[in-house]
This record gives sequence, C-alpha cells and structure tokens, in this order.
Amino acid sequence: MTTTVFEGTTGADEAIRAAHAAFLEGRTHSRDERASWLEAIADELEAHREELVRLAGEDTHLPEARLNGELTRSVFQLRLLADEVRKGAFLDATIDHADPDWGMGPRPDLRRMNVPLGVVGVFGASNFPFAFSVMGGDSASALAAGCAVVHKVHDAHAGLGRRTVELVVDALARAGAPEGLFSGLLGRDAGTALVDHPLTRAIGFTGSERVGRLLLDRAAARPEPIPFYGELGSINPVVVTPGAWRERADDILSGFAASMTLGLGQFCTKPGLLFLPSEAVERAREKLPALLQDAPTGAGAMLSRSIHEGFLHNRGLVEETPGVEPLLEGGAGDPPSPALFAVAAADVGEDSPVLTSEMFGPAAVVVSYASEEELLATLDHLPGQLTGGIHSADGEAIGPIASALTDRAGRVLRNGWPTGVTVSYAQQHGGPYPATTSGTTSVGTAAVGRFLRPVAFQDFADADLPPELQEANPQRISRRVDGVWVEVKEA
Amino acid sequence: MTTTVFEGTTGADEAIRAAHAAFLEGRTHSRDERASWLEAIADELEAHREELVRLAGEDTHLPEARLNGELTRSVFQLRLLADEVRKGAFLDATIDHADPDWGMGPRPDLRRMNVPLGVVGVFGASNFPFAFSVMGGDSASALAAGCAVVHKVHDAHAGLGRRTVELVVDALARAGAPEGLFSGLLGRDAGTALVDHPLTRAIGFTGSERVGRLLLDRAAARPEPIPFYGELGSINPVVVTPGAWRERADDILSGFAASMTLGLGQFCTKPGLLFLPSEAVERAREKLPALLQDAPTGAGAMLSRSIHEGFLHNRGLVEETPGVEPLLEGGAGDPPSPALFAVAAADVGEDSPVLTSEMFGPAAVVVSYASEEELLATLDHLPGQLTGGIHSADGEAIGPIASALTDRAGRVLRNGWPTGVTVSYAQQHGGPYPATTSGTTSVGTAAVGRFLRPVAFQDFADADLPPELQEANPQRISRRVDGVWVEVKEA
Repeated sequence: MTTTVFEGTTGADEAIRAAHAAFLEGRTHSRDERASWLEAIADELEAHREELVRLAGEDTHLPEARLNGELTRSVFQLRLLADEVRKGAFLDATIDHADPDWGMGPRPDLRRMNVPLGVVGVFGASNFPFAFSVMGGDSASALAAGCAVVHKVHDAHAGLGRRTVELVVDALARAGAPEGLFSGLLGRDAGTALVDHPLTRAIGFTGSERVGRLLLDRAAARPEPIPFYGELGSINPVVVTPGAWRERADDILSGFAASMTLGLGQFCTKPGLLFLPSEAVERAREKLPALLQDAPTGAGAMLSRSIHEGFLHNRGLVEETPGVEPLLEGGAGDPPSPALFAVAAADVGEDSPVLTSEMFGPAAVVVSYASEEELLATLDHLPGQLTGGIHSADGEAIGPIASALTDRAGRVLRNGWPTGVTVSYAQQHGGPYPATTSGTTSVGTAAVGRFLRPVAFQDFADADLPPELQEANPQRISRRVDGVWVEVKEA
Repeated sequence: MTTTVFEGTTGADEAIRAAHAAFLEGRTHSRDERASWLEAIADELEAHREELVRLAGEDTHLPEARLNGELTRSVFQLRLLADEVRKGAFLDATIDHADPDWGMGPRPDLRRMNVPLGVVGVFGASNFPFAFSVMGGDSASALAAGCAVVHKVHDAHAGLGRRTVELVVDALARAGAPEGLFSGLLGRDAGTALVDHPLTRAIGFTGSERVGRLLLDRAAARPEPIPFYGELGSINPVVVTPGAWRERADDILSGFAASMTLGLGQFCTKPGLLFLPSEAVERAREKLPALLQDAPTGAGAMLSRSIHEGFLHNRGLVEETPGVEPLLEGGAGDPPSPALFAVAAADVGEDSPVLTSEMFGPAAVVVSYASEEELLATLDHLPGQLTGGIHSADGEAIGPIASALTDRAGRVLRNGWPTGVTVSYAQQHGGPYPATTSGTTSVGTAAVGRFLRPVAFQDFADADLPPELQEANPQRISRRVDGVWVEVKEA
C-alpha cells in the first residue's frame, strides 16, 4: 500500500516533493474534474461516518451528536466548495479589451485571473477533529483553489487523523486525482520542515497564540517568505445593552450559559467576556452560577492534557488580576466545572489579563459598565477578535458599540451567540491580530482566496489563454469585462 | 500654516496620530464624498502641472515629456479610483439571507463587506517621482480604500515631494476632508518609526530588495505584525521563439533596445534578460550593440548617486560570472552608456547572478538556448518576477513557455515589451517573491484590495447595517446575493 502519512524531516520532504509534482499535474485537469475530486472526498467521509465518529470519540472525548454534526459540516463544506470550483467564482476573471482611447494612453488587451499557489501546508486544530483538521476548512479550500495539501495531523487525535488521511487519499485515487495531491505528516519535526520547505507556498494553521507566533515568525524569516494564515485565539466579547437587559434578562443569561459551556468552552468563538450594565450585575450574580452548573457541556473531559493545563494557567492569570472576583470556582479536575469571574470595567486596565488571556475552556468574566463611555473605553483596549456580539432592544441605537466591535472583530453579531459558525458565501471567520494573522477568513467560500494569486495575460492570442479568459467565455463563468460584472445565469 | 511634512521619530508619531484621528472621522463621510477628495487631488495636481514637472526635472534629471506622461498617469489613476469608490467595486458586498434549510443546518442572515484598515504608511520610489511616489499608486489606492496615508518622501526628489505633499494637503482641506488624512515624512528615522508605530496598519513600499527586506522583517517582527506590500525588484525575462525570430528578427532587436534603454533602464519592468534561440545569436551580436548605442535613453543622468553605484555593483557581478561575455561595455560614467552581455543557457547555473542580480540601469544579458528543454530548465531557476514576455509567431505553440512564465511572474505578455504598465481593471503589477512580497498588485484598481479587510454582520437590523449591505440596496452597488452576483446597471 502507498504511504499516506509521513514522519520526520525526510518524510516531510518526500511528501512535499510528491505534492508539488501532483500540483503540477493536477492543474492540467479541468475545473469540473477538480470539483469532482472534492465531491469524491465528501462521499468517502460520508460513507465512513460511523467509523470516523467512533475514532473521533475515542481520541477527543467529544460526544457523538457533536461529532456527527461536525462531520456533516465538513462534508457540506466540500460540496459547497466543489460548486464554487465549477462556477469559477473565486477566479476574479477580469477582462480589459484593448482601448486606443484609454485615458492615460492606449491600453493593451489585458486579462487577469487567479491561479493556485502550489503546495499548501495545513496544521490541524485539536478542538475540531473534522471541521478544522485533516479535511477541514483549510485543506478543503486549498484543494478547491487547485493547490496540493500536506497536512500536519494533530497529536491530540492522531488515530482519527491517520484514518482520515487514508480515506482521503483513497477517494482521490479512485476519482483520478494525481498521486500525492494530499498526504499527512506526523510529529513536530515534520511540521517544522513543512514550514521551512522551499516548495511550500502557504501555511494554514489553527492553534495557540504561542505556537502560531513561532511558526508565523518562521514563515516570515524564510529566504522566500510565504503567507501564514493562522488563527491564534479570541476572547469574543458580548455586550448587553440596558434596553436588551430590561427586555429579556433571563434569556440572555441562559443563552450565555449554554454558549459558554458548550463543548466545555473549547471553541475559538466561545464568549469569554460578558459586558453587562451595572444595574444588571446583582441579578447576574444571583442567577448565572446555577445556570452554568446545570448547563450540559456535552463533553466528558477536555480535549487533551496540554489544553487542560493551558486553561488552568490562563484561568489563574485572570483570577489573580486585581479587582477580579470569583463568582463560581471551577476546580482543577478534568473536566473542570464552569468558572465565572466578575470585574468592574473601571478596574480593567489596558493590558489586563481579562482582555488578553484567552481561557480556552469553561470560564468567562462578567464585566460591569456604568456608562456607554466606560464600555467603549474598555472595548478600545481589546486586541483583535474573531467575533463581537451585541444584545440590544429593537430600535435602540447601537452605532458606537457596533463600530467599536467592527474595529476589533471579523464578525459582529446581534442578539445571538458566537458559537456556531455557518459555512456560506458571506461568512467571515478571522479578525485583526492575534485573532488571525491576516484579514482573510478560514471558513466559508471566501477562504479559497488565501491560496490564489492573480496573473494578467497581455495581448495573448485567444487560443493561448486559459479558457476562463477566452473571448467567447466557453466555460460560462462570471467575469468583470471593461469594468462591468457580467453574471452568467445558470442554465 | 499647518505642518504637512514631518521629521524624526517625534514628527512621525505626530503625523500618525493625526492620520488615525482623520481616518476615524473620514470613514463617517459617504463614499461619494470620499471619491470627490480623490478628484480634488487630481485637479490640484493638474492645475500645478508646470511647476511640478519643473521641480521633478530638477530632482531627477528625467526629461519633460516623460514627466508629463507620468503626471498624466497619476491624475488618471486618481480619477479612475474615484469612479471605483463611487461604484463600491472593491467592497465585495456579499449577502446570505437567513436560510432554515441550509445544508449544514439553519443559516443566520450574514452580510459581509470590506472596511478600510486604518493608517497606511507609504514609501515612495526614487524612479517614478509621480506614479510611485507621493500621490502614486499606493497612496491613491489606500485613500480610495478609505484609509489615511502617511507618506515617506524619497530623498532623491525631496523638493518635489515636499511640494506635492503641500498641494495634496491643500486640495484635501478645500474638499472638506479631515485634517491629517494625508501627510509627509522626511528622513530615515521617521520612516523606521512609521513601520514600527502601533497605529500603522499596513505598509506600501517600492524600492530595493535590501531595504525592502529590512522593512519587511521589521513589519513582521512587530508585536502585532502588519501586512507589508513591497515591490523589491525584477529582471523581466523575455523569450523569443524560433518562429518569431524567423518572422521579425530586426523588429524584435530594435524593440528590445528601445525598451531596455528607456529612462536609462531605470524601470522595475525593464527587460533584463533576452532569451534567443542559438541560431539568432550571431545576428544579435552584430546588430544589438549599435541599436543600443543609438537608442535615445531620454535621461541626462541616473536618478541618484546610490542608484548609479548599485547599478555598477550589480553589473559587475554579472560581468564576472563565468561564461558571461561582454558584447558592449557601458563604462563607469554617469550617465552610463548601455551595456550588453551574452551567455549560453547551458552555462547559467541555479543561483547565477545572471538570474538573480537586477541591473537597475541600462544593461541586459542575451541568453542563447539550444532547445526548448534547455530554455525551460533555465526559466525554472528564475526567482519571482513582475513580468515575463514571449515573442512568438502566430499559431506557434507557446504553452510550456507561457506556463513557466506564469509560474514566476504576475504579468505575462506576448509580442510586446514590459515597460509601460497601464492602469486598468485587469492590471496585475506584482509577482512571487522577491518581485513583490505578496500576491497583490500595486497598479490598477485591484490595488485597493491591499488596504481592506472583510467584516461580516450577523442578524443585524436593516437600519443598523452599512447602507451598502441594506436590503433595498439604496446605494445601488453590485453585490453577491445568496451566491449569485447581481450587477446594478448604471443609470
């Protein structure tokens, strides 16, 4: 049987060289064929659902329902991206016809479209064994772009990871994709080699700020630096306005308790800061501890020992911050029970751990604010976030709060909770550093754009152009022609 | 009078803080107003054409006709970008309506658009006193994005630079833009402070690989790294096929001589490598030296002493490369006369200075190839380029050569010369490292995308959304709605 999972520096080199060769061959195939490869992977994962969910459960302690939902999401994502590949949606095909009267002087015929970068290295996340792992958003969008993928399997679910790589490789082989287009790596040395290899053209990463920054710096220090698309952490502030509190305080508290404890709080979008108006604090103190204790976390233990240790460490940092008061102690066991802290906005300084230490697990801080001015001043000190939430009453003015959150987050949501990230055209999962290391998204169809670069063809003969740019538009894709978008309606 | 050009670290801090405040106020203005600011700058530069061209001539030794053309280009660019701002073309407005039947589970209402990054630092290039300087492509596209700009004036044309900053600041003030939206910096300390300042959100740079890499590394090492859009150098290979040579050898040689010597070869797109089939070499040796000696360079001296020194240094590196033979000596004077070298492709090793040392001035290398195989092997060793050219006969198969150039360049052109870069929708001026430090373009309307990031709004009340995302589309911009682009026809 062909090797599909490689180890060590030598293994990484072998996988990357094979991936590069497969990329070169793969791009000679039509978009329609490449779309069918994504669908073949989706079908294969679906066909092995029971086995995969069982393996994932053994590795991660996550319950079956959650894992089933996550696999559904991953399979859906592959099919949605296959559809985008067929549409040519992310090629950004743009045609300027030659124009002797162009305002700055005669213009040649120029036609631009996006082309894939080459070999993409992807590091899987521990907390999403399907959606951000072997065949998660990074791998799926890199393959959709036309790249080859070498995936560093996360140690926290190596059993599931190995098996998923095997299934993907099998599915691709049967669908006619070139051998080596996708493979797996195991171990830290192989991961480092993946970032350093001259044939690696981009990295996708989801994980801790510490490891992410190390790899980011490594990618930037290469003789030829490459883009590093990292998602490093987020605290996800949620603001409750006085109007929303008057209208539906209990709903807000129970919604928060459910979102914060879901999956033992091990989500990058877990709401970690709840901003409440001062008048709300007494009721919150009274009700929230019980709601949190009763919330079904849906997980029997934390994902890994290192995540558990990291959680206890950062929870400790928050707990020891002057002005912070514990409302509910979480304990040191595994699983930890939910922990809750309270602090007044006036006591939160610029670099307070309350604003900078992500507690990746079931813990959060209630921050009470005496005025909108005080709220905005505190939000102003927050580093970049994946999401920011607002709960407001209908018609209540939220402009300044929405604006402050927009400045800090990639997704701003109203009257909802940040956990649960749909895969769609308008999704944006990524925000200012350190939430992510670039302004791009790792979820949704726009994620493909990370693995492309534009090329313009000047005065080419029509037959020498890629079909997407030929005058007659034989592939019927949407294009911007002489400045105007021309959408081709589906047949 | 208000200060418009700042010096030193303290001056940079003052300019950047003012720019940040202006950015915050500026984004409360409508897109229509912001477009009119760009037009006001265009009008002001046009109104002072005579004075600006005179100042530029004194600083750069470039002839009047060239400077007039460059100013026309810069003014045109501002007006084209104003038009794009009005169209909302680069907002990438995307709307997903709530969908209870979405394949992976119910989908909320999600609406995404691009928002400006904040303060952008721009470093002017020495070789384009208008088009890549104070109000060149980087500044114009950052302002079009809705950002504020702090521009580091190039020492090589500080007189012109100061005056241009003054005019831009005046024009913006009269057009009602917030004070501080645009300003200038002078001196190396101020430039370094611009890269380091926490309020700086992105850098645009055009210059040498050495300085560019220093600043790139500096931007990457910040506590909060920022995107660095640098254009660092390019050799711009041009391939002549046997068919093209048979058809029009003399035209090719004279076209090459004109493009290579234009402006004393001080263009980032100067063709520095001419690949000729072996059978062409004798005629090229015979004819090219005279054509080069007779070519009007259109410049009385090189742009600056440091450019002259850098040119002589790199020309020396190429000259001393084993296998390289001089066909025409350029001398050490200023202006240097054109220099030409010849080498056989078989003698060009992987890291040969022939492929890696940009001679920024009037010098180039003729590389003779014995077979397409040999040609492709040599192209394969080229680092990233801004452009790659092919001269071929009609109907001649150019697939493998076009593909090799596409892998290495951002713009691939047929039967033309790389100098002369039009500003349009499909333009791509940027290529793999070190041509540029990202896959983006610094010329054309797509340049705006570098200074934006996407934000998604989830379940917002219609009135709380930016007008560009409101359901009724009051600003009549093109949007992707539920996966389909909807182009709004102009009234």
